[in-house]
Amino acid sequence: MKLKVTQENLSKALNYVARVANTRGTLPVLANVLLSVEGSRLKLAATNLDIAISSFVGAQVQQEGSLTVPARLLQDLVSGLPGGVIELEQDDTRLKINSGQYKSVINGVSAEEFPVMPAIEKGVRWQVPAATLKEALQQVVFAASNDESRPVLTGVLFQSIDKGLFVASTDSYRLAEKYLMENELEVKLLIPATALHDVLRIIGDHNGDIEVVCDEQQVLFQVSDVELVARLIEGSYPEYRRLIPASFATTATLSRAELINITKVASLFARESAGSIVLSVDEASESIWIRAVASQLGENNATTSVKAVGSGSITLNSRYLLDALQAMNGKEVQIGFNGKLEAVLLTDPDKEDYKHIIMPLKS
Amino acid sequence: MKLKVTQENLSKALNYVARVANTRGTLPVLANVLLSVEGSRLKLAATNLDIAISSFVGAQVQQEGSLTVPARLLQDLVSGLPGGVIELEQDDTRLKINSGQYKSVINGVSAEEFPVMPAIEKGVRWQVPAATLKEALQQVVFAASNDESRPVLTGVLFQSIDKGLFVASTDSYRLAEKYLMENELEVKLLIPATALHDVLRIIGDHNGDIEVVCDEQQVLFQVSDVELVARLIEGSYPEYRRLIPASFATTATLSRAELINITKVASLFARESAGSIVLSVDEASESIWIRAVASQLGENNATTSVKAVGSGSITLNSRYLLDALQAMNGKEVQIGFNGKLEAVLLTDPDKEDYKHIIMPLKS
Repeated sequence: MKLKVTQENLSKALNYVARVANTRGTLPVLANVLLSVEGSRLKLAATNLDIAISSFVGAQVQQEGSLTVPARLLQDLVSGLPGGVIELEQDDTRLKINSGQYKSVINGVSAEEFPVMPAIEKGVRWQVPAATLKEALQQVVFAASNDESRPVLTGVLFQSIDKGLFVASTDSYRLAEKYLMENELEVKLLIPATALHDVLRIIGDHNGDIEVVCDEQQVLFQVSDVELVARLIEGSYPEYRRLIPASFATTATLSRAELINITKVASLFARESAGSIVLSVDEASESIWIRAVASQLGENNATTSVKAVGSGSITLNSRYLLDALQAMNGKEVQIGFNGKLEAVLLTDPDKEDYKHIIMPLKS
Repeated sequence: MKLKVTQENLSKALNYVARVANTRGTLPVLANVLLSVEGSRLKLAATNLDIAISSFVGAQVQQEGSLTVPARLLQDLVSGLPGGVIELEQDDTRLKINSGQYKSVINGVSAEEFPVMPAIEKGVRWQVPAATLKEALQQVVFAASNDESRPVLTGVLFQSIDKGLFVASTDSYRLAEKYLMENELEVKLLIPATALHDVLRIIGDHNGDIEVVCDEQQVLFQVSDVELVARLIEGSYPEYRRLIPASFATTATLSRAELINITKVASLFARESAGSIVLSVDEASESIWIRAVASQLGENNATTSVKAVGSGSITLNSRYLLDALQAMNGKEVQIGFNGKLEAVLLTDPDKEDYKHIIMPLKS
């Protein structure tokens, strides 16, 4: 391998792929990035066996070849080099990196030791606008579980229902569902939330369409010159739609920003009680109170005005409430609830494409 | 105590003092901030017994009194409240905080349990422009030691020499000295570096003069409405000036930015060898090389042009070199060194007020 690339392009491409390389794994080569010449482009690739990311950079190729080198070191080195042309030259398992007054050699590992990246053949294929996918992922992914003991809950479900494609996740304490787009295909994919964090990072401020390709085992997201392939999670996802309440004894509609403010202040006093705060809605006085009592620290009461139907109160985890409110983007939020142990639903009264439910705490 | 203050002023004052309150100490009241009425002002104070910070806020006082409450909780609460008037009212050891729709109660501890703040009487007093002190501290404080086993090295020395006041620190591997100002007084103060980090934080973007008052045990910095008092470190400071070399076998003068760049890139390859890099100066070719060899990772060579007198090479810790270069602010830097085990001096060739020395590594 012998080629020239620009520092700007190489650095950008390394920033996409290097994050997925892992120095703490059992297989040392997974800490490396694979460099290989493909036609007139340099391909960079890294994987942790569950997720693989690759990125392409236009290059002036003099000689083909491939090699793996430590991802983090190459990333730091290239980002420290001045802008302009960088020359990469392979010498057996060593990579020479020359740029003006800088001459470096990085000891690498043969490309043959790098795991073969999975390929998707005969997959189902569709497009989604980058901004649409980004918004949906930002509103849903955080509600997935981190707990590896129930793997299905660490995934995010992409599922077709009545010609609509929905994205949903739950950690069993809360649940988020977003309508993504019209879609004629029959799709049911359980994608690791960790992979979708990387998809979000790769989307960045990208405009235009993202191509998605999937088969029974894998899904691929293609964002311009960057590709991410993730292994799907196996197992059957809970029938979550049954949990979404359809009618309410109490509903309150109020300013989302105002509710964020009073919840934040109340949460300071809820540290002792694992985040527990009490929301009370009163139809007659058109108000909502949030109350937190910490026997040691003190107590807090905050109120604001609402449009209410019915009166009642419910105990919630303030962090879950804040997460949900911050994921929404409407001016107003509607809260609906029933008995003390039944799910609370948060929606945007002006838009029906997002539903967030939170299970109450025992009070 | 019953009074009104603005959220903006109270929040700013709490940000100055709350940091010094410590929730992990053995004396629980030190996690609290002391609120007390002094004339028409509310005084806020916190201490960790080594450092005490107090700040004053204009208030509309209805009733005098004093009380301590958890510093962090009050700070977070006040910063979350909307702008405008906040009413504080003491009810025995409880503090009521009312602001529009927010009503909070914080459980406090009697002011009598709070340690009495040290006072400086008959101290020596001088003024220094905030920008001058800030620059000197930023160039010197980082070179003090963190190692509590040699307490004097955790301090920064303020010392009069020939009617000039100098600020100096050393951790025994490196040493920084800055000329602060002309000063007729006889001063020799060893101030904890930790206290000076707080002084830097309090100075922020403050303009104007800072008043310094000191006696045998303590020093006070007054920055507008904020006061910091620190206990001085006892013990005799090393005669550091003897360590500063006066003549050199090799000197090189070059662009500071350029040297930072090549040192940063070399340091990536110096991780294996505890940061060790080799600088070589060649008078004939007017160049400097930096070389790092990491047997596992690879190697790096970078060069740039210099004005040199003499030739030679020296092994340094790349982090110490970067710290020093980043603390300086001239366009150029001059490096002077002698034998392999003698101190290296970094100075600004255009300005003689800052000296930084680094002890070389064995090569």
